[in-house]
Amino acid sequence: MNPTQSDQSPHRPLRAVDIIIKKRDGLSLSKEEIDFFIKGYTAGEIPDYQASALLMAILLRGMTDQEATDLTMAMAHSGEILDLSPILGNAVDKHSTGGVGDKTTLVVEPVVATCGLKVAKMSGRGLGFSGGTLDKLESIPGYRVNLSRQEFLDQVSRIGIVLSGQSADLAPADGKLYALRDVTGTVPSIPLIASSIMSKKIAAGAHTIVLDVKTGNGAFMETLDDARKLARLMVSIGRLSGRKVIALLSDMNQPLGCAVGNALELAEAIDTLHGGGPHDFREHCLEAAGYLLVASGKSASLAEAKSMAARALSDDSAFEKFRLLVQAQGGDIRVVDDPSLLPKAAVIETIRAEQAGWISGIHARVIGETVITLGGGRARKTDSIDHSVGVVVHVKVGDQVEAGQPLVTIHAKNQADLGIAKDRILSAISWSDRKTESLPLFYGVIE
Amino acid sequence: MNPTQSDQSPHRPLRAVDIIIKKRDGLSLSKEEIDFFIKGYTAGEIPDYQASALLMAILLRGMTDQEATDLTMAMAHSGEILDLSPILGNAVDKHSTGGVGDKTTLVVEPVVATCGLKVAKMSGRGLGFSGGTLDKLESIPGYRVNLSRQEFLDQVSRIGIVLSGQSADLAPADGKLYALRDVTGTVPSIPLIASSIMSKKIAAGAHTIVLDVKTGNGAFMETLDDARKLARLMVSIGRLSGRKVIALLSDMNQPLGCAVGNALELAEAIDTLHGGGPHDFREHCLEAAGYLLVASGKSASLAEAKSMAARALSDDSAFEKFRLLVQAQGGDIRVVDDPSLLPKAAVIETIRAEQAGWISGIHARVIGETVITLGGGRARKTDSIDHSVGVVVHVKVGDQVEAGQPLVTIHAKNQADLGIAKDRILSAISWSDRKTESLPLFYGVIE
Repeated sequence: MNPTQSDQSPHRPLRAVDIIIKKRDGLSLSKEEIDFFIKGYTAGEIPDYQASALLMAILLRGMTDQEATDLTMAMAHSGEILDLSPILGNAVDKHSTGGVGDKTTLVVEPVVATCGLKVAKMSGRGLGFSGGTLDKLESIPGYRVNLSRQEFLDQVSRIGIVLSGQSADLAPADGKLYALRDVTGTVPSIPLIASSIMSKKIAAGAHTIVLDVKTGNGAFMETLDDARKLARLMVSIGRLSGRKVIALLSDMNQPLGCAVGNALELAEAIDTLHGGGPHDFREHCLEAAGYLLVASGKSASLAEAKSMAARALSDDSAFEKFRLLVQAQGGDIRVVDDPSLLPKAAVIETIRAEQAGWISGIHARVIGETVITLGGGRARKTDSIDHSVGVVVHVKVGDQVEAGQPLVTIHAKNQADLGIAKDRILSAISWSDRKTESLPLFYGVIE
Repeated sequence: MNPTQSDQSPHRPLRAVDIIIKKRDGLSLSKEEIDFFIKGYTAGEIPDYQASALLMAILLRGMTDQEATDLTMAMAHSGEILDLSPILGNAVDKHSTGGVGDKTTLVVEPVVATCGLKVAKMSGRGLGFSGGTLDKLESIPGYRVNLSRQEFLDQVSRIGIVLSGQSADLAPADGKLYALRDVTGTVPSIPLIASSIMSKKIAAGAHTIVLDVKTGNGAFMETLDDARKLARLMVSIGRLSGRKVIALLSDMNQPLGCAVGNALELAEAIDTLHGGGPHDFREHCLEAAGYLLVASGKSASLAEAKSMAARALSDDSAFEKFRLLVQAQGGDIRVVDDPSLLPKAAVIETIRAEQAGWISGIHARVIGETVITLGGGRARKTDSIDHSVGVVVHVKVGDQVEAGQPLVTIHAKNQADLGIAKDRILSAISWSDRKTESLPLFYGVIE
């Protein structure tokens, strides 16, 4: 006889503290227990102090794939679940875990829309060293990110593409838990990250999801091992919840492309939509677009899909789609046609190499954090943003550089900011006097 | 260069979230960080949800002896620290980690007071399966446990003994954290338990502390290994904070003595003060009293100290001291002189053995929980108590029992309660048809 266990009969009503204790002791929670906790927390019946204790226990004890799936679905169902199937058929969505210089959405979505995929995308804002698509789009005067539900649906029906913020209160439990995680040291938990991402995608109505899981010093997953675990878990959550998930593992050990900062990244995206742009960024976009087109059934093979995508860039049709998008959402089309009209920083200075050599490292997180210091990102959610400032990095890891060659151009509000940024950016670039290897774009695909 | 660490410069102001993250990652907190957190939490500047996340991280990651000492001192200094040295000289205190049938204080304190030690003791109430000294004393009509500071000090000066509740707001941070631990699954952490106990003892002015750390199925530390860890840590906290701590490891795999329940335990204590009482309980009291007398310098050896203590029981002087105590605190002296006048339950039934055999186990926790069910303890802090109800267990593990021999006497409010208690009590007693070993009283001493 075990008197402690006899008290835990199946007929005993669920209590938050017992669920915390079960996870604390490393046991798996049932779907019923997870639902009870998330419903109670969303309704305000379970207080923050019990939720934060559970979050810490999850972070330190882990969760099985089934538990993470149950948590995902409980958070997805904490608000409404959009049903886009009448408009989109099989709704396909793309999500990046966030990185430095990641303006992929601005290129990939117009490309796949050009190739016939309907794009109904809700994006987020930047937080921390990682930028956000909405902030980049707002570099365009007039661009509206707060569409109503009806405007959102009408636009995707009419022109086949919409890029806005959340037009509904999706997965409110995730929003509430995320705010709590931020102040209780419980952000970097793979099951919590996976269920946060997946709950929002599922609430937004996605049936097929292409994930760009970034790894490296400018990503939330610093090691490839962690990134792979996160990717595998999200693919597993997809399988267990009846969604198709494909996860690309991509490099974030240096900024993606050259530009970091809102208007600067928008200009680089427009350049890429015209068929130009940095080589690494263009390749990254073609790969992501390719997987989206295959996943949605628009193309039979990745090679064919990438050719379709490349064509959309070279014949300017993707640019035309982007132009249509900006116009539909009230943005000033003149800055799209002439990016030199985008907001411009007061002080622009190019730093040149003082020495010859090979680039062995460009610390992406330091670059991202420096752009925040310049005013281009938020330290807190309520901070306002200067769209004009940022950094353009002219070199890549593996490049051989001559003395006097341009390394970085800094766009700052004033000389004081410039001075600070210059020191930080130079400290982020490592050199070697021997040949260095370039970095791969991708480390693999999990599906 | 490590940019993450460069953000954590020593000049950066302390933030609660960084302290949580540090412990989450298994690092040791500095005294400055612990002081900052406890001060902020006591002042209400650090919210419960950050404290509960830290508590869970401490529970799962542990603390060094130095951290537990810093936590102890931070909690002790969250309120006032009593200075009893003008009255007591070297203030000696005793503390039990709690068990079933543990009425030790009621005997040991009058005994050591008889032997010349000044006893200024603040006790607690029962919670869960473990009883509390104040509840037992309140079986005596009129006994006041809420003395003012001045009454408390006057009484110990006048008659050398006082047994009351807290007469000051000692270690308020501990009180606040304990309430939070109770609802967040963070009670069973050895460093948190140790610092909670030690902070209250230090705030109450103790310089020398004799701890009775109980282990077994009726104790909070179920395994000897955990009890030893807790004892070692408290001795270490004592050393690091300049206090002398001696920890006895005692058995709690069966109730201590025979009586469990407030008035029943008081009657058993009075019997013991007259030189009678159950053998195991008497021996336990003599050992504890012996260590207190040696620690306080009243005796040079444990053997001599135990003889002094035994004399105080056999010549009734300890009983006279107890009588003086009750009188001083307003209690009805008639019930001390004639314990048959104590509150009596409506239904009293003795259960007899249906078989012959050896007792192989008496599950102390089940006994303690049954007494709560009878109304003799609290499930919640606000519950009221029936002092009359309880259980007297007439056998001990290792006893050979004949069929028909009395096993247990149950004291209940009514027949329905009696029926429930009977089944539970019988399920708590295990039998063997071969000779069983008796249980030791003590497993060792750590100092």
